[in-house]
Amino acid sequence: MPKLLVSKWLNTHDEISVAKLRGNVVLVYVFQMLCPACILHSIPQANKIHQMFAPQKLQVLGLHSVFEHHDAMKEHSLRAFMHEFKVKFPVGIDKESIRRKGTIPQTMEKYAMQGTPTLLIYDKNGELKFQEFGHMDDLELGFILGTLISEAVS
Amino acid sequence: MPKLLVSKWLNTHDEISVAKLRGNVVLVYVFQMLCPACILHSIPQANKIHQMFAPQKLQVLGLHSVFEHHDAMKEHSLRAFMHEFKVKFPVGIDKESIRRKGTIPQTMEKYAMQGTPTLLIYDKNGELKFQEFGHMDDLELGFILGTLISEAVS
Amino acid sequence: MPKLLVSKWLNTHDEISVAKLRGNVVLVYVFQMLCPACILHSIPQANKIHQMFAPQKLQVLGLHSVFEHHDAMKEHSLRAFMHEFKVKFPVGIDKESIRRKGTIPQTMEKYAMQGTPTLLIYDKNGELKFQEFGHMDDLELGFILGTLISEAVS
Amino acid sequence: MPKLLVSKWLNTHDEISVAKLRGNVVLVYVFQMLCPACILHSIPQANKIHQMFAPQKLQVLGLHSVFEHHDAMKEHSLRAFMHEFKVKFPVGIDKESIRRKGTIPQTMEKYAMQGTPTLLIYDKNGELKFQEFGHMDDLELGFILGTLISEAVS
Repeated sequence: MPKLLVSKWLNTHDEISVAKLRGNVVLVYVFQMLCPACILHSIPQANKIHQMFAPQKLQVLGLHSVFEHHDAMKEHSLRAFMHEFKVKFPVGIDKESIRRKGTIPQTMEKYAMQGTPTLLIYDKNGELKFQEFGHMDDLELGFILGTLISEAVS
Repeated sequence: MPKLLVSKWLNTHDEISVAKLRGNVVLVYVFQMLCPACILHSIPQANKIHQMFAPQKLQVLGLHSVFEHHDAMKEHSLRAFMHEFKVKFPVGIDKESIRRKGTIPQTMEKYAMQGTPTLLIYDKNGELKFQEFGHMDDLELGFILGTLISEAVS
Repeated sequence: MPKLLVSKWLNTHDEISVAKLRGNVVLVYVFQMLCPACILHSIPQANKIHQMFAPQKLQVLGLHSVFEHHDAMKEHSLRAFMHEFKVKFPVGIDKESIRRKGTIPQTMEKYAMQGTPTLLIYDKNGELKFQEFGHMDDLELGFILGTLISEAVS
Repeated sequence: MPKLLVSKWLNTHDEISVAKLRGNVVLVYVFQMLCPACILHSIPQANKIHQMFAPQKLQVLGLHSVFEHHDAMKEHSLRAFMHEFKVKFPVGIDKESIRRKGTIPQTMEKYAMQGTPTLLIYDKNGELKFQEFGHMDDLELGFILGTLISEAVS
């Protein structure tokens, strides 16, 4: 299960919990709402996967990891963004750094991410199988999802 | 010359004035920073025209006309957006409505625009020749620009 | 194993045989060299899959099924097409109809295909799992390939 | 007027003559039917211009200049190609070289073209203003057309 350090979840009434995701392949799209590659490529791909693979034991999540322009990407702005770009899957807000406010948030630091977009892919047992910086090609991603969903839970 | 009701210009030290634009074809891209069609199509086209036609007696301007999600699209957010999307041409902030705050801004109302993106094209004499809601095709727009730039100032 | 009725194989020195393909997922791109959707979408996708998934127990094949403009799509034309479009996987020429020359070729008729492009996908046991007329989305196709390659040979 | 050395015109009942084109801006798309960049970019652009600018004193022409795979691109193949790709403007067949058959055709040699696609643009007086190898951007091409159509015939 993804160890995401999240201050708040949007687009969901439930806690995103270990119990809930167990047995599902989990995709986490780490993004910033004002990151061009995220808007042009990752969010459309995430929306598409969320729609196509809903019944396939696959859960798409977003993680809003703000590491620059913090004032321009607060929760109310993120909500407006998600409304305009029709993001329907749960999105967590990456916890702000305690030591150094206005810098890299906690999950982003923990995973040593290089920036956004970053894609995290977990298998049904909650093990992180892929962490990729930049956009992943549809064919390659589809192949990974087909492979991971075919695996049995151990 | 465009009669734009602007509270502040960004990306320019000068006032955008009649005298300055006289003799130039002027393109005004009216947008909202969280409008998907603006981000996907209009801003890239505006950037491209700004780069391609700089020496051609053509001036590209932006007008940020916020008619929804006002809190998410204030000046500091717009500045972050312009930095991330590499917008280098002058952008004016459409004046807020006096009577009814948080609704349609003044230039947008004056021109009876239907939404964003809207493109305003003025000839060298400052006369509004085209007002188009939605994205305009590159071939058609290039043709209009070639035609208007070929005209003499009257 | 695909029951393809082929008069000649190009791009391969070997016979494309049951023994050879057994244990592989097999994709057959049925196309005509002058079919716009084949050129714009299917051949590029086939080339990409051929390059990406070579080591993955996956075999890409082409089948040239000419059902119109027969004179314009003979073997020497097909060879020029394959050279120009960098088709590197084996391509079979669908056998001409015996009864009615210049009409629908034998494999196309046998499978009751509606036209080109058509994609045939076989699992590792040689069973036809998908027959799709028109272009298949990259995400969906990647998912199918990941699923089929994960299956054991029975 | 373009000095095109053409053995036969397709898609037109008239001779393409000086008198007919005088006063029109003339675009000549030089292509080979099995040239990938021609199929992917030039023919679609030519079709679009032919449809958009018909009433604008603009004539789109094609020139089929075969310099390789001659057997695969004879007239009957070209006709099938034009049918499939919905080419509705007149297309001339570049005259075969007399001295060296199966090499570069006469117009292509005369203009010292580097390959296909090549775009020739003539003003209303029949003067060649642009000769560009490779695909020309829509915005730039639209701009050139708008400029040339605005010129008076001298």
